[in-house]
Amino acid sequence: MATGRSPTNIAVIKYWGKRDEALILPVNDSISVTLDPDHLSATTTVAVSPSFPSDRMWLNGKEISLSGGRFQSCLREIRKRAQNVEDEKKGIRIKKEDWGKLHVHIASYNNFPTAAGLASSAAGLACFVFTLGKLMNVKEDCGELSSIARQGSGSACRSIYGGFVKWCMGKNNDGSDSIAVQLADETHWNDLVIIIAVVSSKQKETSSTSGMRDSVETSPLLQYRAQTVVPERVLKMEEAIKSRNFESFARLTCADSNQFHAVCLDTSPPIFYMNDTSHRIISLVEKWNQSEGTPQVAYTFDAGPNAVLIAPNRKNATLLLQKLLYYFPPQDNDLRSYMVGDKSILSDAGLKSIEDVEALPAPAEMKTPSQKFKGDVSYFICSRLGAGPKVVTDESLALIDSVTGLPKGV
Amino acid sequence: MATGRSPTNIAVIKYWGKRDEALILPVNDSISVTLDPDHLSATTTVAVSPSFPSDRMWLNGKEISLSGGRFQSCLREIRKRAQNVEDEKKGIRIKKEDWGKLHVHIASYNNFPTAAGLASSAAGLACFVFTLGKLMNVKEDCGELSSIARQGSGSACRSIYGGFVKWCMGKNNDGSDSIAVQLADETHWNDLVIIIAVVSSKQKETSSTSGMRDSVETSPLLQYRAQTVVPERVLKMEEAIKSRNFESFARLTCADSNQFHAVCLDTSPPIFYMNDTSHRIISLVEKWNQSEGTPQVAYTFDAGPNAVLIAPNRKNATLLLQKLLYYFPPQDNDLRSYMVGDKSILSDAGLKSIEDVEALPAPAEMKTPSQKFKGDVSYFICSRLGAGPKVVTDESLALIDSVTGLPKGV
Repeated sequence: MATGRSPTNIAVIKYWGKRDEALILPVNDSISVTLDPDHLSATTTVAVSPSFPSDRMWLNGKEISLSGGRFQSCLREIRKRAQNVEDEKKGIRIKKEDWGKLHVHIASYNNFPTAAGLASSAAGLACFVFTLGKLMNVKEDCGELSSIARQGSGSACRSIYGGFVKWCMGKNNDGSDSIAVQLADETHWNDLVIIIAVVSSKQKETSSTSGMRDSVETSPLLQYRAQTVVPERVLKMEEAIKSRNFESFARLTCADSNQFHAVCLDTSPPIFYMNDTSHRIISLVEKWNQSEGTPQVAYTFDAGPNAVLIAPNRKNATLLLQKLLYYFPPQDNDLRSYMVGDKSILSDAGLKSIEDVEALPAPAEMKTPSQKFKGDVSYFICSRLGAGPKVVTDESLALIDSVTGLPKGV
Repeated sequence: MATGRSPTNIAVIKYWGKRDEALILPVNDSISVTLDPDHLSATTTVAVSPSFPSDRMWLNGKEISLSGGRFQSCLREIRKRAQNVEDEKKGIRIKKEDWGKLHVHIASYNNFPTAAGLASSAAGLACFVFTLGKLMNVKEDCGELSSIARQGSGSACRSIYGGFVKWCMGKNNDGSDSIAVQLADETHWNDLVIIIAVVSSKQKETSSTSGMRDSVETSPLLQYRAQTVVPERVLKMEEAIKSRNFESFARLTCADSNQFHAVCLDTSPPIFYMNDTSHRIISLVEKWNQSEGTPQVAYTFDAGPNAVLIAPNRKNATLLLQKLLYYFPPQDNDLRSYMVGDKSILSDAGLKSIEDVEALPAPAEMKTPSQKFKGDVSYFICSRLGAGPKVVTDESLALIDSVTGLPKGV
C-alpha cells in the first residue's frame, strides 16, 4: 500500500487541442503554475493484494468505473515499468514479473470540489501515476512519469512538478518527447498570491475532452493559434517567469486565457465556458489595471466560469479581494465559509465580519459601481504556488483500510 | 426639401476592423441582408434655405452635434457632386456652385430603438447620404453613393441597396473601389423570415468604432481571419445566396458571427458583446439544428447582445418563436407589445394570449427544459428582407416644417 498527494495546476499558456487523441499529444506547448497542495490537491492510496479479484477505484468515497481508457493507459504503463519490491520488516516480497498478476484498489480524494472545474482530473491522474509508481518501485524520472500521466489526462503531466511547469508538445509520433519539465520551483517567485473565485454556474458545461475535439475539427482559428501565436508567447512567458516580470507575465496570461476562450467561441457549435459573472470579474480587473497603467493582477479561466486571479504580492491581493467582495458579497452573509484556503487574507484586507464587507467603498475606477451581484460567486479560495507530488508517510492518513482493502469509512 | 427612407442591414459575413480609419476602409469584404424598412428604417428630411445660418441636425426630435467627422465627410462629398436644381412650379432655382453657400437642416427618425444595437447608424447615414443626394440633384449611381455613405459609417454603404449586399473592401488607398454592390434583390429569396430578440442588457457596451480599433491593434487572430478565413467564406456565401442554399447560408452565418465575437474576445482588453441570454439563444438554436441534423434557423449577433435569427420559411419561424417564447415569456404578460413588426407571426404560431405562451411545451431537444428566463428579452421583432432607400413623396410625411425650417413638433 502507498499513499501520495499531488497538486492541481492552472495553465497560464493554455493547452487546447490534441494532435493525437489516443496518446494525448497536444497541438502546442503549455505552461502552468502548480497550486499549493494544502489548498488544492488529490490524495490517493493504492493497495495490492493477491486477494483482490479485480482492479477497483473509489473517488471521494464513491466507486467509479476503471474501464475508461485514461486509467487503463496509466495502469498499463506503470505496470510495465514495475520493479522488484522487498520490505523485510513487513515481510513483503514482490517480483517485477508478478505485478501484472496483482490487482489494485485505488482510493482518491480531492480536498476541493471535484465538479467545480478546478483541474481535478489533472491532480487525480498525476497522483494516481505518482503513487502507483511508488508502490511498484518504478525508477523512472519525473519526465517519464509526466509522459505517463499525460496519457491519463493531458494537463496531469504538469502536476508532476511544483512551481512553474512547461509541457513540451514534442515532435515524435509515439509521444515519447511530449513531456513536462519544471521551469522554476515554487520558491523562485514566492510572493505571488492566487485567489480563485468559484463562480455559480447554472449551465452544464461541455467537457474539455469533447470541447477540444470539436475545436480541432471546426475552428479555423485553432491551428493558427497553435502554430503561430503560442510558440512566441511560450518564449515570452518563460522569460517573464525567469525574470519575475509581473507585467509581462500578467499580459501574456490574460491574453492567452482570452484567446483560448476565443477559439472555443470559434468552434461549431460554439463553446461558452465563461458567463456574465466571469465577464464582470474580467472587467473589474481590466479597469483596475487600466487605471493604474500597469497590471495589478492577472486573470485566467479554464474550461469553466471560475476566475483564477494571480496577484504579484499580498498588497495587491488584499486590494483585489476588497474589490471582489464589494461586487460579490456572500449570499448567506457568512464570511468565514466564503473564503477557503488561506483565510488570513481576510484579516489582511481588514475584513473581519460581514459588516466590514458591507462598508467596503465602491472601486473608484468603476464607472457604474452601484450594482452588486450577491450569490454569483459561490466562494473564494486563497492560495499560493506549491510543490509537486509527495509520498504521504503517515500511514494513518492512508485512504484504504489495510485489513479490508476497502476505502476507510465505506 | 427632400425626404427619404433607408433600411437597416444585418451582416451575415461580418465587417470588423478598418485598414484606414479616416476613409473607413475595411480589412475584409462583408455581406449583409437588408431588412424591411417598414420594420427597421431611418426616415430623414433635409431642407436648405438661405435663411439658415448654419448646418443643424435633429435625431428623433433632439438636436445633435454635426461637428463629428462622419456627417461632415458625407456632407462635403455630396455637396461636391451637387447639380443645378430647377423647379418652376415651386419657383426654385439653385445653381450647382451655390450649394456650398447654403446651410442644411436635417431631421432624422428611426422607427426602432436607436440604442438597441440594431445598426441604427447604418440606416441613418445611408438615409442622410441618399436624401441629401436627392435634394442636391446628385447624379451618381448607387455604387458611388455607397462609397460616400461608407465614409459616414462603414456598414451604411450596405444600406444603399435592398436584398443581399456585398461590401467589397477594395484595394485602392483612396477608397475609390471600396463600395457596396447588390448580390440579389429582396424578391430573390423572399421566404426568409427574420426574428430579432432584443435582449435586455445591464452593461454599457463598447462602441463598435473603438472596439474594432482595439481589435486591429491587439488581436493576433484578426488579420488571420481577414486574410485567410473571410475570403473563402465570402465566395461560399455568394454561392449559397445565389442558389438559395439555406443549409450553407446558415452554417456560414453562424460560424462567422461566432468568429467575429471570438476576435472581440481575443482583443485586449477583451470585448464582450454577447451575454448569458445571447448564449442561451445560441444553445437553443444549436440544439434544435443538431437534433434535426440540418440547420432549421441561422443566428447572427452584431456589436451587442441582440439575436438576429433567420428562418428559411414561415413554418420554421413559427416553431422558433414557440421555442423562444417558452424560455423567454414577456415580463409584463403583454403579448401584443412583446412582438413588434409583423405581429401576424403570433397567430401563425398559435399564440393569441399569454395563456397560450404559458401552455407551450418545453422544446423536446433541450435536456434541461425546466428553467425559464422571464424578462431577459425586452421584445421581439418579426421582419423580412426589404428594399433599398426610397424617396418619400408624400410631403405631409416630411420631418421638417417647411415654414419654420425646424423639425415638426419641436
